[in-house]
Amino acid sequence: MRIAVLGTGMVGRTIGTKLVELGHEVVMGSRSASGETVTAWAAEGGERASAADFSGAAAAGELVFNCTAGGVSLEALEVAGAGNLAGKVLVDVANALDFSQGMPPRLSVCNDDSLGEQIQRAFPDARVVKALNTVNASLMVNPGALPEPTDLPYCGDDEAAKAEVAGLLESFGWPGEHLLDLGPIGSARGMEMYLPLWLALMGAVGGPGFNVRVVRG
Amino acid sequence: MRIAVLGTGMVGRTIGTKLVELGHEVVMGSRSASGETVTAWAAEGGERASAADFSGAAAAGELVFNCTAGGVSLEALEVAGAGNLAGKVLVDVANALDFSQGMPPRLSVCNDDSLGEQIQRAFPDARVVKALNTVNASLMVNPGALPEPTDLPYCGDDEAAKAEVAGLLESFGWPGEHLLDLGPIGSARGMEMYLPLWLALMGAVGGPGFNVRVVRG
Repeated sequence: MRIAVLGTGMVGRTIGTKLVELGHEVVMGSRSASGETVTAWAAEGGERASAADFSGAAAAGELVFNCTAGGVSLEALEVAGAGNLAGKVLVDVANALDFSQGMPPRLSVCNDDSLGEQIQRAFPDARVVKALNTVNASLMVNPGALPEPTDLPYCGDDEAAKAEVAGLLESFGWPGEHLLDLGPIGSARGMEMYLPLWLALMGAVGGPGFNVRVVRG
Repeated sequence: MRIAVLGTGMVGRTIGTKLVELGHEVVMGSRSASGETVTAWAAEGGERASAADFSGAAAAGELVFNCTAGGVSLEALEVAGAGNLAGKVLVDVANALDFSQGMPPRLSVCNDDSLGEQIQRAFPDARVVKALNTVNASLMVNPGALPEPTDLPYCGDDEAAKAEVAGLLESFGWPGEHLLDLGPIGSARGMEMYLPLWLALMGAVGGPGFNVRVVRG
């Protein structure tokens, strides 16, 4: 499959590299196709990895990952182009963390809205699935690094899009029975508002290498 | 120990009854000491259970649980009286859920503030510990109902107060190694902002009888 990964930060590079390893063709999108990070990633990634600007990547991808920083995701997707996203599955991995007021970060959107919903509203023809924002980059693509299975929530309005994303997540190593479908994209509120707890837990357990498992009665 | 439980909802009654079973003297506080719910609870609770108004309960308790609805907690504690709370451990169990705009509920405070912090600021002489707001009432006092141990976060600025609350939580059945000290009261933001995810998880797993376990690498 040809997949666009928008964003060249740790999350984008980690997901992009995993997708290449899995045999996909990956176009990583950056502000500029000649940016240092994106060209270095593409050079290291081998023949299935390439670099483009946001628009070129989104046009090339059959499926698109939004791995840009949450605070600028809407703008980056606007540059990518609504037409290039139309009809495609758009996996939104971003967290709208705002560090401008110091630590701990605020969310730039929460409570009665979420970044996932904003993206779905701004790009109504994209099939947005919120996923992976609740764990750190290395666990996203290697959940087996933890000693017990843990759970990964996802949500979105398009059932076929969610099924496709669930399949991709299974290929990342997430067992199907540990993927929790939280329903429509409105559940992105809960998935994104979990971040302040995640940050506090990271402090309590001493690092980002953790995830939660839901235990039912 | 003589403990005040402010609030006569499911959470207050469940915690009050557990504390009586554990041998504590419990004064449940309501708007009115002659309210139907509080007098019925006291009548069923036996000789260690009694009813009072908010102020009378807070005055009587050596330690105070805030189990009022989060949206009215500050007002209820004002009625309870700053003087009656001064120097005492105040366990804040409340979630500031606002159902006035329909479902799902909003939080009436979040992101750069929390109910726990508001209470600590409004009652600087109380020793506020946020705890138990992340699980449903019956699990609060019976975590062993789940098939595996799960984790319970708590936070507050006063170390001795947190140690006292941790002891109480252990008496409720929470193993000490599953109590996660998230640090100062500011971590109440994360604990309270978890609620929208908790509600979505409740929908996904089919009921409120669940909790999470933190799995570390």
